[in-house]
Amino acid sequence: MARFDVIAFDADDTLWHNERLYAQAQEAFRQLLAQYHSPAWIDQRLYATEMRNLQHFGYGIKAFALSMIETAVELTEGRIQGSDIQRIIDIARTMLTAEVELLDHVAETLMSAAQSYPLMVITKGDLRDQELKIAQSGLAQYFRYVEIVSDKSRDSYASLLRHHTINPARFLMVGNSLRSDILPVLALGASAVYIPYHLTWAHEHDTPPQADHPGYYQLEHMGELPALLARLDAIERSLSTQGMVE
Amino acid sequence: MARFDVIAFDADDTLWHNERLYAQAQEAFRQLLAQYHSPAWIDQRLYATEMRNLQHFGYGIKAFALSMIETAVELTEGRIQGSDIQRIIDIARTMLTAEVELLDHVAETLMSAAQSYPLMVITKGDLRDQELKIAQSGLAQYFRYVEIVSDKSRDSYASLLRHHTINPARFLMVGNSLRSDILPVLALGASAVYIPYHLTWAHEHDTPPQADHPGYYQLEHMGELPALLARLDAIERSLSTQGMVE
Repeated sequence: MARFDVIAFDADDTLWHNERLYAQAQEAFRQLLAQYHSPAWIDQRLYATEMRNLQHFGYGIKAFALSMIETAVELTEGRIQGSDIQRIIDIARTMLTAEVELLDHVAETLMSAAQSYPLMVITKGDLRDQELKIAQSGLAQYFRYVEIVSDKSRDSYASLLRHHTINPARFLMVGNSLRSDILPVLALGASAVYIPYHLTWAHEHDTPPQADHPGYYQLEHMGELPALLARLDAIERSLSTQGMVE
Repeated sequence: MARFDVIAFDADDTLWHNERLYAQAQEAFRQLLAQYHSPAWIDQRLYATEMRNLQHFGYGIKAFALSMIETAVELTEGRIQGSDIQRIIDIARTMLTAEVELLDHVAETLMSAAQSYPLMVITKGDLRDQELKIAQSGLAQYFRYVEIVSDKSRDSYASLLRHHTINPARFLMVGNSLRSDILPVLALGASAVYIPYHLTWAHEHDTPPQADHPGYYQLEHMGELPALLARLDAIERSLSTQGMVE
């Protein structure tokens, strides 16, 4: 008996590299404004603009581009050149057209997991950008469901699980963000596998759960997931044999 | 017997006013660039930029804002002032925070239709913007399903209907865009009610179907929908009595 009815995966920095696109963009942005301000101050003002705009602009590259432009105007007191504004829009376009590069072990892990479980993607950001990335990733074939959401809160997961009539106790989420992929899922009584990525946007930082929190697992990389699933399935079978689960 | 299993509604300019926000924004944009170019040339260049960006930026206010900024840089040969760039971002923010204003007859028509049919919203644009508008509209209670899509093509409708296991012959779409709401739906063998809005973005223009195209109806306003549904339901009942439908 399998331990889970559905396994869901975050996409950005869980299935493919993403945050480094933002890091590269932000480095180019710092250089653009280097004559005006220190890198630390530029980063701080950009993050403040992003947080102020989050409620209405939401997540994703277009929101990031608008926040970079607004920060550039603010930090240059309006002296920013038109050519530099164009440069920022070009940076956004480069991000949106970047090749999708899978993380190590992702392709083979999904191929194997898809044979035993219905798989789902749950990702946030620009609708079209995420759809294009899923299409380009070559992974679409492994996913029975693709859910692109505007926010990953406890409520939005609860509503997704209700919509798909998934019992939280039989649901596993795999992702790289404690704040978006792990904590809200554990709060629902579901399970979560945290696989840290080496870069994390400040907004996604959060306090890890206790290592022994029920249903919480941390792995080094996606290649370790099949062994974890096999172990949990074996435990489930053994409990089932002993009549301890339905 | 009801004629349809599900009735779906477009949102922008079908349920609430939207295109006039873009028209107001574009008027402010023209004034911003009035010292450089004629209104007609500004409109033409903005539309060209929007079409060029559509593939990667998609639909919605954030994409529109980035296209306005890019057009402003182009049309001023980079001489645009930082304060004017900020003004464009403020225009976008005004659009995103605008009050949702329902079209006439929408609230009472949905309230009545929801008593007899499962209702759905199918809308495109920014995920978060559309979610906020649905929440603010006071209409969310009438919709069993909300679908925010990146594009409204024949394929995207086909995939939606499959996902909800809806028979196209028993599906009705109501909307103001021939290109996005009417033609792709008729092409699937479903029914469509076209309710023109007095403003239409050039990109949504298309050739109307023949007035007698099966399943195609045109109404003046949403208040006429209940009578049309009652008429189609009556025909269905009569055919059913005669054993001509299952």
